[in-house]
Amino acid sequence: MIIVLRPDATKEQIDHLIEKIKDLGLSVHISKGKERTIMGVIGDESLLEGAPLAVLPGVENVMPILKPYKLVSREFRKEDTVIEVDGVKIGGKEIQVIAGPCSIETRELLFDAAKKVKRAGARLLRGGAFKPRTSPYAFQGLGEEGLKYLAEARKKTGMPVVTELMDPRDIDIIYENTDIIQIGARNMQNFRLLTEVGKLDKPVLLKRGLSATIKEFLMSAEYIAAEGNHKIILCERGIRTFETAVRNTLDLSAVPVLKEETHLPVIVDPSHAVGRWDLVAPLAKAAIAVGADGLMIEVHSDPENALCDGAQSLKPDKFASLMKELKKVAEAIGRTM
Amino acid sequence: MIIVLRPDATKEQIDHLIEKIKDLGLSVHISKGKERTIMGVIGDESLLEGAPLAVLPGVENVMPILKPYKLVSREFRKEDTVIEVDGVKIGGKEIQVIAGPCSIETRELLFDAAKKVKRAGARLLRGGAFKPRTSPYAFQGLGEEGLKYLAEARKKTGMPVVTELMDPRDIDIIYENTDIIQIGARNMQNFRLLTEVGKLDKPVLLKRGLSATIKEFLMSAEYIAAEGNHKIILCERGIRTFETAVRNTLDLSAVPVLKEETHLPVIVDPSHAVGRWDLVAPLAKAAIAVGADGLMIEVHSDPENALCDGAQSLKPDKFASLMKELKKVAEAIGRTM
Amino acid sequence: MIIVLRPDATKEQIDHLIEKIKDLGLSVHISKGKERTIMGVIGDESLLEGAPLAVLPGVENVMPILKPYKLVSREFRKEDTVIEVDGVKIGGKEIQVIAGPCSIETRELLFDAAKKVKRAGARLLRGGAFKPRTSPYAFQGLGEEGLKYLAEARKKTGMPVVTELMDPRDIDIIYENTDIIQIGARNMQNFRLLTEVGKLDKPVLLKRGLSATIKEFLMSAEYIAAEGNHKIILCERGIRTFETAVRNTLDLSAVPVLKEETHLPVIVDPSHAVGRWDLVAPLAKAAIAVGADGLMIEVHSDPENALCDGAQSLKPDKFASLMKELKKVAEAIGRTM
Amino acid sequence: MIIVLRPDATKEQIDHLIEKIKDLGLSVHISKGKERTIMGVIGDESLLEGAPLAVLPGVENVMPILKPYKLVSREFRKEDTVIEVDGVKIGGKEIQVIAGPCSIETRELLFDAAKKVKRAGARLLRGGAFKPRTSPYAFQGLGEEGLKYLAEARKKTGMPVVTELMDPRDIDIIYENTDIIQIGARNMQNFRLLTEVGKLDKPVLLKRGLSATIKEFLMSAEYIAAEGNHKIILCERGIRTFETAVRNTLDLSAVPVLKEETHLPVIVDPSHAVGRWDLVAPLAKAAIAVGADGLMIEVHSDPENALCDGAQSLKPDKFASLMKELKKVAEAIGRTM
Repeated sequence: MIIVLRPDATKEQIDHLIEKIKDLGLSVHISKGKERTIMGVIGDESLLEGAPLAVLPGVENVMPILKPYKLVSREFRKEDTVIEVDGVKIGGKEIQVIAGPCSIETRELLFDAAKKVKRAGARLLRGGAFKPRTSPYAFQGLGEEGLKYLAEARKKTGMPVVTELMDPRDIDIIYENTDIIQIGARNMQNFRLLTEVGKLDKPVLLKRGLSATIKEFLMSAEYIAAEGNHKIILCERGIRTFETAVRNTLDLSAVPVLKEETHLPVIVDPSHAVGRWDLVAPLAKAAIAVGADGLMIEVHSDPENALCDGAQSLKPDKFASLMKELKKVAEAIGRTM
Repeated sequence: MIIVLRPDATKEQIDHLIEKIKDLGLSVHISKGKERTIMGVIGDESLLEGAPLAVLPGVENVMPILKPYKLVSREFRKEDTVIEVDGVKIGGKEIQVIAGPCSIETRELLFDAAKKVKRAGARLLRGGAFKPRTSPYAFQGLGEEGLKYLAEARKKTGMPVVTELMDPRDIDIIYENTDIIQIGARNMQNFRLLTEVGKLDKPVLLKRGLSATIKEFLMSAEYIAAEGNHKIILCERGIRTFETAVRNTLDLSAVPVLKEETHLPVIVDPSHAVGRWDLVAPLAKAAIAVGADGLMIEVHSDPENALCDGAQSLKPDKFASLMKELKKVAEAIGRTM
Repeated sequence: MIIVLRPDATKEQIDHLIEKIKDLGLSVHISKGKERTIMGVIGDESLLEGAPLAVLPGVENVMPILKPYKLVSREFRKEDTVIEVDGVKIGGKEIQVIAGPCSIETRELLFDAAKKVKRAGARLLRGGAFKPRTSPYAFQGLGEEGLKYLAEARKKTGMPVVTELMDPRDIDIIYENTDIIQIGARNMQNFRLLTEVGKLDKPVLLKRGLSATIKEFLMSAEYIAAEGNHKIILCERGIRTFETAVRNTLDLSAVPVLKEETHLPVIVDPSHAVGRWDLVAPLAKAAIAVGADGLMIEVHSDPENALCDGAQSLKPDKFASLMKELKKVAEAIGRTM
Repeated sequence: MIIVLRPDATKEQIDHLIEKIKDLGLSVHISKGKERTIMGVIGDESLLEGAPLAVLPGVENVMPILKPYKLVSREFRKEDTVIEVDGVKIGGKEIQVIAGPCSIETRELLFDAAKKVKRAGARLLRGGAFKPRTSPYAFQGLGEEGLKYLAEARKKTGMPVVTELMDPRDIDIIYENTDIIQIGARNMQNFRLLTEVGKLDKPVLLKRGLSATIKEFLMSAEYIAAEGNHKIILCERGIRTFETAVRNTLDLSAVPVLKEETHLPVIVDPSHAVGRWDLVAPLAKAAIAVGADGLMIEVHSDPENALCDGAQSLKPDKFASLMKELKKVAEAIGRTM
């Protein structure tokens, strides 16, 4: 940690600072420059994390040297983490597509979607049973009943399934019925939930919060890893900006930044980001071109009558054509699908 | 709801739209303008909420007429809601200040802060027992032990207390030990938690999410109200913008907008917004001047050694001087403190 | 235009509104719904543009029906506009790459870069003579001298050139020495400059402002078109968001949205968006995959010693490899390069 | 400047870095910590400004120590700058209000507004002759004719006047007819315009750009000061955020931050920020409470028929009542009006 002193810092202020730092078991190196004096703190920087040094008298600025995440950092582990779920590898050379309806509405609709996305080449099935909805008056998901349909669909198709966990009280029922546990964007900083899934032995698909920086996103992954579960899939799904032409702004630059900062696989959900099915195809191609390890795409057999997010869902035939186009882009950048 | 048709919409597309709307039990009024044809949908707009009309062929744009929140809207209730907690009225002419440490660290520190903020004129005590922290390695709060100290402080000082609920599994223990239940910014869209506190008979202090629009903020309040609990205090605490000079940008224009849109009391937390104690005083004054019904301010007897958010905490003597200054501003705008 | 009345609007307020609208030569259609009365204004909506209807007593909300841009809209012209500069077509099936140094520093460096980007397949040359710099103490460009070098480089290589216009007083000198006139992001709403280039007969490359919505971006293009110059190339170059890991957030969803809203060609500048050369390659690929008609990429023969934006400049050999990879992506989506 | 090395930086990389820094005439101090080696660069930091150190091999991060602005910084000048215009002092204990119509429409309307705002206590008159409008089809101001009316109003009322400069070609005519030259938000980074007003001897009112950080805002002021003109009034007028309930989000925390960083006076324009007259009053009070040195408020005698921004203009009688309320707030915080 570097502490920049104000040009008018007094000797008393500086001595007080040094004492505080030494009390924490750290040592200090002082360097007087032409216009500023700076203090370099040597030792375990995390000991200073809570200390409000920046507002102590005499201090102009405090700059941490180390990144706050450790286990999920590329520095901790050089090679890419590849997560295997029932033979499907996420994070390797092959790009994986997770597809299915936003929410599970009926057994028939789910089975139909599952069959069709599988035929089109998707290897993982998504489907929400518990749905976070902005309005209390909107459809909230089928709950436990939905989970049963999902488990049936898994059995029928052999595809591993992904569903969202919203409440620590649902952990057992979700754990039983899914292969990958999703933590939604609105729960990215639900730290209690992160701690709980950190104790499980199933992969976690962690979505980036709408206003989360990349650093905060990785800190949330660190919460999970710190409990022992290192099987984390990061998912960029759009951030909130001033632009209103689309629901959220898909931040594709986050993908190469994340690939540099962390060893974890990174996927992209274009459906939720833009909220319009006609933009899903170009953004899905861009996501692959930018280096994502996978995609999460909403597919619904009857989007016009969907109970949730019909506007952003592709029909199965459009999804099938998209898969063919995605394959070409994947090959163009040296990956497979 | 108004549906604007594309200039090239075909008769088939229009007929299909009309049929869809009629199927939902609504009627349609068509109006051909010079450059666009528009359809006005007459009946209960909420029936169309889930329907993905905007992406149906022939549709250019869909514009809802009604606001999505009902129970919390000013239209539902004209007069200001005043919430009374143990004789302290929030939402009336008198401005209330909630003060205390960010987190409860020891019994002594809490009691000391409680005694001093009371003496300075604060009528409610805050203190976190369960703390949402960005880093898994940071102090996470004393938990149940902290709640006991809080209950003791309440008994000792007679001040009603506020503390944060983060997990539905903590509801009983929180309910027992607090007078007002806080839902933090990161949980503003934790819909399960909102539903739970909506079933309780204690006031809820709901903080605005970092990237929540005012409309979404009110929809989260609606979640609570929809379950029967109408005692909701809204708290503006800064939103995330591109500016990095302060932690978050305190959105004071939200206060008069909220006062117009809803009958609920609105308070402001300048401490968390800016993250620097030296900016708390000017922003607290501005919050009162702009029309807030109260303030939430962090006070710590020893900020330099605080385990959490020391940088933004006022010392008790600074808080006492601030209270005097705030009183003058309150009087200048015709309110009391 | 649709005017939604407040539920408590009085007859006097409504009559006053109707009178105001009729005074402007428009007619009104009133429709009483279950919960709201709405007024549809029939006639030329632009007559109401300046009128502050939204704050008149009795009015709850005002919603325009038409888009504010006309000449640049897809509705005005169905087919894609293809702009031809010295045989290079922008906006057609072939993707064009504009490459070169951020600023022109010496004749030799410019010629070297020009020769190398041409060899690698770029068909247009960029180079700044007048540079907008955040700091008054930074290198501001060679000015007129730089323009001469640019004109020489054009003669030598046969490549059409692009350079930025910052000041209406430089129009003549820029006009003489460039083939495409660039309006930078910081001048996107310099309306006097837009009006001036609107009077010229050379293509304009208009960059999106850092905080401009897509609608405002198109309104700035409309400023140029309204003066008679329809040869406008739109350039997405990153918007300002809360994320600080990269300089700006490249908004790739803007590309398909723009292609839908306007007939003008759309290109992407990944270099300025991210500010780091190592992220330029993945984002350039993504820009092509998402449907951009071209790219603008900074190439410098000696980035370490560049006077401006060296951090985001590719070396010529890295650029040459990138061009090969981009060609593959272009082909994967059915375009040429 | 502090350079943090990557843990895997090689000796060659480090030597190359040191050589580069020494070539620039600076010296280096190396400090090996437990987890990172850092280099402190000693000497004139500005020599490194353009150098792309952050992307050199072996470098993890580069952190500047000094602030990039000098002349406008509080460090350069401890005492508040007070700017006097015809006996009106801006930046002292007395809070000044600049009022008048958004744009000058007719001689009569301007004179009427001028007379009334003067009577209410405003000491400076605003009025736009050249108007930056988002749409090319909107009223663009009376131009030179408007400036003549403004000069007449000044003569008649004795109030100093403020008007906006948009184009370097208008400098002479603006200079002649105004006392304070306004640079609008959209031109905050029109560096050529800043340089020009930096050469004049009249005060400049510089508005913050919609997406400008406080640092960039001060850098734009530095542009003016660097040319010799130190009479700069900073004006916060709202920033662009995701919130759409108001036009822009007024960033009142910017006021105390600016007062700490710079010696220049800081005023607030609530009218443009929110775009709704009914929110102007509470935000004007908040601006004074937070420590602004003045306000800029739009007043129009007939807002319903204003050609520009009628929605945000106060009627003269509402303005007069507001002035009385503002006086009370000013006194509550120990200032005069």
